[in-house]
Amino acid sequence: MTSNNAFYAQSGGVTAVINASACGVIETCRKHSDRIGTLYAGHNGIIGALTEELIDTSLESDEAIAALRHTPGGAFGSCRYKLKDIETHRSQYERLIEVFKAHDIRYFFYNGGGDSADTCLKISRLSEHMGYPLQAIHVAKTVDNDLPITDNSPGFGSVAKYIATSTREAALDIASMCSTSTKVFILEAMGRHAGWIAAAGALASDTNDGPPHMILLPEVPFDRQRVMAHIDAAVKKHGYCVVVVSEGARYEDGTFLADAGNTDAFGHRQLGGVAPTLAGMVKQDLGYKYHWAVADYLQRAARHLASAVDVEQAYAVGQRAVECALEGKNAVMPAIQRDSEEPYSWSIVDAPLERVANQEKFMPAEYIREDGFGINDAGRRYLSPLIQGEDFPPFENGLPKVASLRLEQIAKKLPEYHL
Amino acid sequence: MTSNNAFYAQSGGVTAVINASACGVIETCRKHSDRIGTLYAGHNGIIGALTEELIDTSLESDEAIAALRHTPGGAFGSCRYKLKDIETHRSQYERLIEVFKAHDIRYFFYNGGGDSADTCLKISRLSEHMGYPLQAIHVAKTVDNDLPITDNSPGFGSVAKYIATSTREAALDIASMCSTSTKVFILEAMGRHAGWIAAAGALASDTNDGPPHMILLPEVPFDRQRVMAHIDAAVKKHGYCVVVVSEGARYEDGTFLADAGNTDAFGHRQLGGVAPTLAGMVKQDLGYKYHWAVADYLQRAARHLASAVDVEQAYAVGQRAVECALEGKNAVMPAIQRDSEEPYSWSIVDAPLERVANQEKFMPAEYIREDGFGINDAGRRYLSPLIQGEDFPPFENGLPKVASLRLEQIAKKLPEYHL
Repeated sequence: MTSNNAFYAQSGGVTAVINASACGVIETCRKHSDRIGTLYAGHNGIIGALTEELIDTSLESDEAIAALRHTPGGAFGSCRYKLKDIETHRSQYERLIEVFKAHDIRYFFYNGGGDSADTCLKISRLSEHMGYPLQAIHVAKTVDNDLPITDNSPGFGSVAKYIATSTREAALDIASMCSTSTKVFILEAMGRHAGWIAAAGALASDTNDGPPHMILLPEVPFDRQRVMAHIDAAVKKHGYCVVVVSEGARYEDGTFLADAGNTDAFGHRQLGGVAPTLAGMVKQDLGYKYHWAVADYLQRAARHLASAVDVEQAYAVGQRAVECALEGKNAVMPAIQRDSEEPYSWSIVDAPLERVANQEKFMPAEYIREDGFGINDAGRRYLSPLIQGEDFPPFENGLPKVASLRLEQIAKKLPEYHL
Repeated sequence: MTSNNAFYAQSGGVTAVINASACGVIETCRKHSDRIGTLYAGHNGIIGALTEELIDTSLESDEAIAALRHTPGGAFGSCRYKLKDIETHRSQYERLIEVFKAHDIRYFFYNGGGDSADTCLKISRLSEHMGYPLQAIHVAKTVDNDLPITDNSPGFGSVAKYIATSTREAALDIASMCSTSTKVFILEAMGRHAGWIAAAGALASDTNDGPPHMILLPEVPFDRQRVMAHIDAAVKKHGYCVVVVSEGARYEDGTFLADAGNTDAFGHRQLGGVAPTLAGMVKQDLGYKYHWAVADYLQRAARHLASAVDVEQAYAVGQRAVECALEGKNAVMPAIQRDSEEPYSWSIVDAPLERVANQEKFMPAEYIREDGFGINDAGRRYLSPLIQGEDFPPFENGLPKVASLRLEQIAKKLPEYHL
């Protein structure tokens, strides 16, 4: 047994499959116990590294770790905590290296989105600068699908499948009632800046004629008159209209349709409530009976409806991260590469972190249909493979079974640290 | 082949399994083609009978009918249309009998909730009065679980499973992020008058300590101060608080927490938006970061997560309705009887419609825990069997497959009728 230990942390908003990545990291570390000692997990992400709250994953049974593959949420705790900039708050980064040193941590696996890719890169550079031998590998995760380089982000395929399925199911409900009841149904999907998740609603039907009859993307400025005219036309043509709206839907000037006015720890505005806002417009302008749903966390936690492709990819990037470490790589992120579209096949390539950090990937204009109210066939060809296959979790007593972990922390060695 | 035809109609809000009842009715009719001729389905429920828009189900393939078992929504169209009172609008009822006469319809299967049970009973009585030999059988359906006599209503078990599963999944999400992000999560569930659906959220955990840490039922008057104190205590104890709130949550004086001010065709107020209303109170009174979800139609359309028990029961009441007709019964509703709790077993009994019509079954006080913020063990024992078992639909191309019907209407024989 070596004393070269490893550290794994989950960062930012969790997904239905981030624990599948954790499973990939942990199981692969266990396979290489000759070269990787103990894998510690940060309690509540990077905060656990700063405060030296390190969970000893070696105390978890193989069975518990395997169950992570079908458990939503972040099993070790995640956080919305952005490290301050390295120039003025260097001590925070130095503290991390100190903790790593104190526990012989040579491998740092950071499971997150764009912000954490940036943190991962900074830590890698600082350790080099400080002469501490650390390999920092980023494990891609985000429901928003906005990471660059990688063809798609683990976590997205499952939320896409959830939104497409929910749209199909709800549309059948509305279709059967519309003669005397609800004419307009609005489903609000996540996606602050990029419309990927809302766009996936299009997969509910095989044609662009819907349902959904309209998708409102952040990429296309909201024009109330045009939107209402389109809804009205759909009701007149089909008897009802199903709309999927992105929480990031905004006006030409960038103002969000519904802006709660709050900001989260990363300085992003806290959104929510676009669906009722839009419903209010429908009522005012068209007078149709409406219903609306806001899926919120349900969509990104819905492991019961995960995409099998997504689960496999989430596991694979975790596994590959450990292999990268063993191959001596540093400051890389295993990325998914689309090798073929029909039939869909993919492989993993190692992307240098400086090409990933702090970049957002938006929906390309080529995927958006001409009227702006949905996606075209190119968009469908991109999205469809990502929702393929089911990977139902085991059920017990009528409910999905989830991993039960001990989450025991090791003794601290360093003085207390205040965030 | 006999010329004694049958008529089937779906009524009111649809469910994930109302088509499973349709499947039970149609398949059982087909088995008895010596005694039951053609089964017609009303296009958009009872409206189809009034307007003589009769779908010829004999044109559908066995395969298409079998697929109804896993298709949400109302395949033949449903409606929110309450027949006016028989004293002053007798002509409407007489029209129904005329249509039935014109098409040799001797069996009337009406698939709905309490309001349609009442309609079914009235039609049965009027036909008797008019000397037309009609057997009217009610097929129970409602997500609200508020039908009397029957132990539970087909449609409820699946929405209960959806709410319990979604609560469990979302709670894992919040638990993993609460140290730096959302502290209070609110899920709004359906249930205008009875708290059954919200109560099912309790099944997300095996204990009454949650999550969910609080369920707000219409049966328990809303007291803002007590509710906020409970949320605050949960956040302080667990780090976060998950609340499931019924859309019917109301103040002592009966005012709904969020009242959109609209009424539907039955004169019920159109609700929605309790979750954001409650979230606003959390923000104002406690200042915690919150998120909220409104599942709306998603919950009652979620056939992908149906309870196997519910699907079986929905099919069984449809099947039994036809058997009742063949046994010469009239004005009855096949009801589910709980024969044993552990292990759960059930059977079907035929309940006279006069005992069913226009009665609502509320959550009994014995199921509500002492503080009013959830259910107790007796409530769990009642609810748990209803969400047991999975009955995943077939998936194709990443999405649940649904029935594809021809829905061809037969030629009209009578003068046009205006609603």
